[in-house]
Amino acid sequence: MTIKPETNQKSRKILVLHGPNLNLLGIREPDVYGKITLAEINQLISKKARGQNYQVQIEQSNHEGVLIDRIQDAKNWADGILINAGAYTHTSIAIRDAISGVQLPTVEVHLSNIHARDPFRHVSMIAPVCVGQICGFGFNSYLLGLQALMDCLK
Amino acid sequence: MTIKPETNQKSRKILVLHGPNLNLLGIREPDVYGKITLAEINQLISKKARGQNYQVQIEQSNHEGVLIDRIQDAKNWADGILINAGAYTHTSIAIRDAISGVQLPTVEVHLSNIHARDPFRHVSMIAPVCVGQICGFGFNSYLLGLQALMDCLK
Amino acid sequence: MTIKPETNQKSRKILVLHGPNLNLLGIREPDVYGKITLAEINQLISKKARGQNYQVQIEQSNHEGVLIDRIQDAKNWADGILINAGAYTHTSIAIRDAISGVQLPTVEVHLSNIHARDPFRHVSMIAPVCVGQICGFGFNSYLLGLQALMDCLK
Amino acid sequence: MTIKPETNQKSRKILVLHGPNLNLLGIREPDVYGKITLAEINQLISKKARGQNYQVQIEQSNHEGVLIDRIQDAKNWADGILINAGAYTHTSIAIRDAISGVQLPTVEVHLSNIHARDPFRHVSMIAPVCVGQICGFGFNSYLLGLQALMDCLK
Amino acid sequence: MTIKPETNQKSRKILVLHGPNLNLLGIREPDVYGKITLAEINQLISKKARGQNYQVQIEQSNHEGVLIDRIQDAKNWADGILINAGAYTHTSIAIRDAISGVQLPTVEVHLSNIHARDPFRHVSMIAPVCVGQICGFGFNSYLLGLQALMDCLK
Amino acid sequence: MTIKPETNQKSRKILVLHGPNLNLLGIREPDVYGKITLAEINQLISKKARGQNYQVQIEQSNHEGVLIDRIQDAKNWADGILINAGAYTHTSIAIRDAISGVQLPTVEVHLSNIHARDPFRHVSMIAPVCVGQICGFGFNSYLLGLQALMDCLK
Amino acid sequence: MTIKPETNQKSRKILVLHGPNLNLLGIREPDVYGKITLAEINQLISKKARGQNYQVQIEQSNHEGVLIDRIQDAKNWADGILINAGAYTHTSIAIRDAISGVQLPTVEVHLSNIHARDPFRHVSMIAPVCVGQICGFGFNSYLLGLQALMDCLK
Amino acid sequence: MTIKPETNQKSRKILVLHGPNLNLLGIREPDVYGKITLAEINQLISKKARGQNYQVQIEQSNHEGVLIDRIQDAKNWADGILINAGAYTHTSIAIRDAISGVQLPTVEVHLSNIHARDPFRHVSMIAPVCVGQICGFGFNSYLLGLQALMDCLK
Amino acid sequence: MTIKPETNQKSRKILVLHGPNLNLLGIREPDVYGKITLAEINQLISKKARGQNYQVQIEQSNHEGVLIDRIQDAKNWADGILINAGAYTHTSIAIRDAISGVQLPTVEVHLSNIHARDPFRHVSMIAPVCVGQICGFGFNSYLLGLQALMDCLK
Amino acid sequence: MTIKPETNQKSRKILVLHGPNLNLLGIREPDVYGKITLAEINQLISKKARGQNYQVQIEQSNHEGVLIDRIQDAKNWADGILINAGAYTHTSIAIRDAISGVQLPTVEVHLSNIHARDPFRHVSMIAPVCVGQICGFGFNSYLLGLQALMDCLK
Amino acid sequence: MTIKPETNQKSRKILVLHGPNLNLLGIREPDVYGKITLAEINQLISKKARGQNYQVQIEQSNHEGVLIDRIQDAKNWADGILINAGAYTHTSIAIRDAISGVQLPTVEVHLSNIHARDPFRHVSMIAPVCVGQICGFGFNSYLLGLQALMDCLK
Amino acid sequence: MTIKPETNQKSRKILVLHGPNLNLLGIREPDVYGKITLAEINQLISKKARGQNYQVQIEQSNHEGVLIDRIQDAKNWADGILINAGAYTHTSIAIRDAISGVQLPTVEVHLSNIHARDPFRHVSMIAPVCVGQICGFGFNSYLLGLQALMDCLK
Repeated sequence: MTIKPETNQKSRKILVLHGPNLNLLGIREPDVYGKITLAEINQLISKKARGQNYQVQIEQSNHEGVLIDRIQDAKNWADGILINAGAYTHTSIAIRDAISGVQLPTVEVHLSNIHARDPFRHVSMIAPVCVGQICGFGFNSYLLGLQALMDCLK
Repeated sequence: MTIKPETNQKSRKILVLHGPNLNLLGIREPDVYGKITLAEINQLISKKARGQNYQVQIEQSNHEGVLIDRIQDAKNWADGILINAGAYTHTSIAIRDAISGVQLPTVEVHLSNIHARDPFRHVSMIAPVCVGQICGFGFNSYLLGLQALMDCLK
Repeated sequence: MTIKPETNQKSRKILVLHGPNLNLLGIREPDVYGKITLAEINQLISKKARGQNYQVQIEQSNHEGVLIDRIQDAKNWADGILINAGAYTHTSIAIRDAISGVQLPTVEVHLSNIHARDPFRHVSMIAPVCVGQICGFGFNSYLLGLQALMDCLK
Repeated sequence: MTIKPETNQKSRKILVLHGPNLNLLGIREPDVYGKITLAEINQLISKKARGQNYQVQIEQSNHEGVLIDRIQDAKNWADGILINAGAYTHTSIAIRDAISGVQLPTVEVHLSNIHARDPFRHVSMIAPVCVGQICGFGFNSYLLGLQALMDCLK
Repeated sequence: MTIKPETNQKSRKILVLHGPNLNLLGIREPDVYGKITLAEINQLISKKARGQNYQVQIEQSNHEGVLIDRIQDAKNWADGILINAGAYTHTSIAIRDAISGVQLPTVEVHLSNIHARDPFRHVSMIAPVCVGQICGFGFNSYLLGLQALMDCLK
Repeated sequence: MTIKPETNQKSRKILVLHGPNLNLLGIREPDVYGKITLAEINQLISKKARGQNYQVQIEQSNHEGVLIDRIQDAKNWADGILINAGAYTHTSIAIRDAISGVQLPTVEVHLSNIHARDPFRHVSMIAPVCVGQICGFGFNSYLLGLQALMDCLK
Repeated sequence: MTIKPETNQKSRKILVLHGPNLNLLGIREPDVYGKITLAEINQLISKKARGQNYQVQIEQSNHEGVLIDRIQDAKNWADGILINAGAYTHTSIAIRDAISGVQLPTVEVHLSNIHARDPFRHVSMIAPVCVGQICGFGFNSYLLGLQALMDCLK
Repeated sequence: MTIKPETNQKSRKILVLHGPNLNLLGIREPDVYGKITLAEINQLISKKARGQNYQVQIEQSNHEGVLIDRIQDAKNWADGILINAGAYTHTSIAIRDAISGVQLPTVEVHLSNIHARDPFRHVSMIAPVCVGQICGFGFNSYLLGLQALMDCLK
Repeated sequence: MTIKPETNQKSRKILVLHGPNLNLLGIREPDVYGKITLAEINQLISKKARGQNYQVQIEQSNHEGVLIDRIQDAKNWADGILINAGAYTHTSIAIRDAISGVQLPTVEVHLSNIHARDPFRHVSMIAPVCVGQICGFGFNSYLLGLQALMDCLK
Repeated sequence: MTIKPETNQKSRKILVLHGPNLNLLGIREPDVYGKITLAEINQLISKKARGQNYQVQIEQSNHEGVLIDRIQDAKNWADGILINAGAYTHTSIAIRDAISGVQLPTVEVHLSNIHARDPFRHVSMIAPVCVGQICGFGFNSYLLGLQALMDCLK
Repeated sequence: MTIKPETNQKSRKILVLHGPNLNLLGIREPDVYGKITLAEINQLISKKARGQNYQVQIEQSNHEGVLIDRIQDAKNWADGILINAGAYTHTSIAIRDAISGVQLPTVEVHLSNIHARDPFRHVSMIAPVCVGQICGFGFNSYLLGLQALMDCLK
Repeated sequence: MTIKPETNQKSRKILVLHGPNLNLLGIREPDVYGKITLAEINQLISKKARGQNYQVQIEQSNHEGVLIDRIQDAKNWADGILINAGAYTHTSIAIRDAISGVQLPTVEVHLSNIHARDPFRHVSMIAPVCVGQICGFGFNSYLLGLQALMDCLK
């Protein structure tokens, strides 16, 4: 699932990456993740970005390799990355290396408060190479993270 | 490698997923995994399912992301999942989240007795979101697991 | 509580061992262990065994030493062992040594999915000396385990 | 060693269980456990219970299985359990399961302050399924525990 | 919040210390801690002490330093200490050192069964320097602890 | 240091708490924490709150006990809490208990990315009882956290 | 299985205890434990003891409780204990307490070199309360241990 | 990115696999990994192989599944494998199983000295199934590893 | 307890901080800490400092927050800090942050040899931000530490 | 210190090695190690060996390297090794490798019961490559170990 | 055992160090380490070095101190070090400090694949101060390591 | 390198021991250890000792065994020991045993602040048997340690 950035070349550009199972949003465990769908979240993200003259390219994948490919590719066109790496957050050194490799400012977000869940979700392998982490605010984590990233890029 | 479910719409349907390296069965370390090939196991599974008026769709992949895609997709058509996640059993929080996300009854099987092998194979990340676990009986683990799953679905 | 094997000498024989607190089945924490009583399970086991021309001797004890005595004694008459060692599963090196000492094919079963409960229930001290492990299917774990054992003995 | 409850059917009844080596009291390491004998403690317990119109059945055993048998049996006649499981406190999941299985209010006591001794004595496997724990007051731990239990049963 | 000891110089004296957040009792998480307020508990403590000719000075503080100050000060006037150090139980080496420094008999109490809660609440830093520990009986833990302490002081 | 909330009774109110050493901001390790002073941050917080018709009371203390007192007191007047507990984040069970005791929506913020620093700063004792956590964006963490909290209170 | 001590009252007396599964000797895993039977070992022990004017009472049990009973009973008649606690070596705090309770000189022996086997066999719970430990010499461990004990008793 | 092996059927053949993010070489963190690009390394590898009459097929992928597919496929045509599994080195049991499944001599290389970096990079999941490991020599690790592999294949 | 620095403005100035329970010196556990009182130690410190033309301000507090306040305040007037943080040594990240925040040369001292006591006293949270550590020499640790600090300030 | 083996070529030969600090015997911590000197122990060893027609060469060194040299050299002339490696027991992989390298039957002894002392003395790095271990019997550990070794060599 | 470097002053010089037990090569555990002797390996090393106009001084010692002495001495004459520290690899901080002290490029080699053996052999204390590590290729590890070092020195 | 004590028999005597690599001082990693050479430090030590009528014998060795020999020998002539055991500090149980064996007052010093360096340098195996520890003050650690030791010997 890919939402292409619009073509206004003057605005800055942000890659928004959703990791595994986030396409199930609204379906999967709504008591943990809420009832809003990913499509609805993506609209909120796009709208907020446009409002501050940013373009976003949004992508979701269940494949660790695809997420890495997208991060690498962003080096060619994006100014920053907003990422919810889902379950890969806790295990993927490869995504971490991709982020530190492209050296774009990256903000990590999570819908749920990962620090209040299973112990194996408390650790983020990617946090140390991100600017910061925002978690626990449901879909609002994305909007807060987008704001944080846009503030960084100013 | 995909074996399509037959078209009898009245029977119930089960997704059978084989994880990484299970396509090497009969070739790879036969003293650990036995000499039977995956194709032969699949025939035994199909036959047993048909005998109880179940259809199975069988898939093998070495890609964690493909396994997740298939689990998610099963939400649209299957009544339950029989999975041998292979090496991903021990590391994949993403597959665990997929299983708990689709909320289909899932039975975990292993050819070998994972509790008698390397310590890092003792832990299953997916077991806590499955109905149960069967391991150590070679190809028969699949048939026992299939039986267990069909019994759950009654 | 002992159920004696019938006297048909031509059929093969299996020792079925229930460990501590399994006599409370149907009473104890039914949300975890189900409402079926141990007597009812034993009847299902006996019936299934008879159907495939096997005899079973079934025994329950809360005493680790009694379980060991029975396993040792089985060397003299049984062809295999089906065991739910209950709480001793997680602590008893002595039962493990008894199983490996008599060298009879042994199948380990559990009513509940031990991998989804307290961390101290995730480890089985006896699993490494058993053929395999089946857990999580309620009373059906016994029937699946019996089938697995009879298949091994063929 | 068993002290039978008296036959006044109107009073409430409590099982008092002493675990392994407590029969050595007054003999064994008096600097750790004090000089009072178990018989003397039992008299104090009986007297205190009678004073509040409770009957007690008191039992000591070095056998984990016997302790479990007694706990299970208490389901048929007792209103609560007062237990000093001795060394089994730190290792017995089976006694823990028995207590949670019979679902009688249970109070755990220890003569010595287990938190001030060897690290392996700091953990109680049974504490999480008991109402509470009292330790460190010598024989008075039993009397305080009895009072606590009778207060619970009011 | 301080309740001054009465001036009867002949009775013995006990410092009762409540640690952080215990002033919230009756408000804070009543399913864990019960509905009784701290003022009500203090009245029960005072009454029980008076009944055995003891005076109590009762103090609550959210400040680790204040708790230490009070323990040190008790050396000048008190015969023993009854303490529920609340959350500081699990982290404060400084309170531990204060207790072992003043060498007054000290009894540790907790409303809830700390051994049945979060793992970080299982360890008490002060238990090894106290006479004993009583936990899990709600407000009754204080009354049992007071009794235990008065028995020690006899 | 206390900044009093203005007296407009119709607006909602938020307690903003700064923990130990945050009064050194602009002085202390500016390469880690930035050059902005706490006074300047407080002005930004107040201004942003006022802009959305919220009042804030802002307090800084190096005393764990004072932080607890303020949280408890907030129960009487505030609608939510924004907290940077500084070093107490990683050790204070008492602050955690205060937050869960008053049951006000609480947002945790940090100037630096705590997940990229010393291992003992990766764990937050208070995160599990907060709505969410925001870290790594310098003073902007406060503004993002304030926004998140105000969004929760809507 | 019990071998009674002879009735010569003038000689000193030793309790020899064999723990679980040692009755399988010569049968069980002969590559680990050797081909000699327990009866043969007992004869060697008796003979060696008699040669130095000692009497031995030899007992084997698979029951932890029976082993404890025997150790406690030895206090009444024996001068020392020679024990191979088998698998209980690694888990039984209760046997440890029995040994330290009766305060008889006790020598711990093992047929196999426990330090060269599974990690969970490296730790002996009873070693710290024994005079010493001898392991790895097959049946000769008993004879060496008997010699060591008799030397202690001189 | 795939470099096809030349068609000289008489020479032996080697699969060279580059794992995730190695395509960023020369771009990504040059102070850690050096300035040479992957294409340049590949030319050096090809040249060295040809000089000793070996053919190489070189492949890079960010996808764990693709790496597994290639290893499995190598069973059909290659004599050995030279692999730098990148970040998957430290987490992938699946790649380990693929290597041990195909049973081709495999040499593991790393550009950087993984033992001098983050602790989670010290462990290689694949090392135990490889012939050996070479790390720390920048691009020269590949050439040394190729030499080592060719020497093994002699 | 505060000892004010004298008013000779030309001499350099040092803050001497005593943490919790050090006011009990001479009273508390004299076998561990010696019989000298804190007042006597302070006189020795003052005398030694004066002898080298240094002024000292000496403070003791049981309150972590007060210690932090004093360290922060020292930034305004002192040239260095001599600190025995007592029990807070092992737990206080907040004191550590205060020391690294004010960036004054700080020397850590302890009366007892903390490395020879309870394991939880082996770790100092403040050592990594101090110039050095001196422990085990009783009151002389202060004098040696003062010397070390004055040498640093030369 | 070296005691040369006598020249009777027909008897078998044993190397006896004493590790670091054993030359202090009789001087060093006599409450732990006893009052007998190493010279006296050596005489007892020599006498016992001669009595069974064995020659011994006895050596003590505080140098790990010397101990390794002696073990390696023993390959040329000895039939077995009796070793008390002292403190190197717990740390020296190099001595372990020497023992497994020369493949002479080796018996490990210790004067004290290492399992009853500091935790770091519980582990023996050399035990897994020795025939067996004897500890806790003071100088008699050597004589028992010598006997065990001579029994092995028969 | 020392092989002196030849006297051609124009060639560059390398110290080759063999640690403990490597002098047993060809004798010790040939299934693990191969049948080639150390003398033969040294000839191969010398020949390869000479072929690229390098001189080598080769030394073997079982003494940690001698290895340190040689490393320190190399500062005066050598351009680089090739070291197989044997068992000291896993324990010697002192050798590590020597290598980092002399600051000569150092390459670490091992005959066996240390990552495939006992867990305590997986860690190298010296790897973090070496250029790189090569292991698993038998004697060829030395030749590859020599090549790697000579390439570094270019 | 040995500096002999002068022959004035009336003064007290101290052994000063420098462990491995300290002879590199002024050469080795000067940013960590400073630029002063060991010879210069030794002159400062000698001078300070003489000034208080003490003689010192100073020795440096890279050999653990030599350090042990010297400590043992000191029993015959010295009144105390000043030791910087270098890297052996963290691993040598043998040096610890030597110190506790000779029972001379021993002071441990380190140039660098070992608590601020690699985790494996935080632990001192010898600290628990020394009077105290001084670290972090460069060469001044020796002078402070010497003063501390001379004060102990008064």
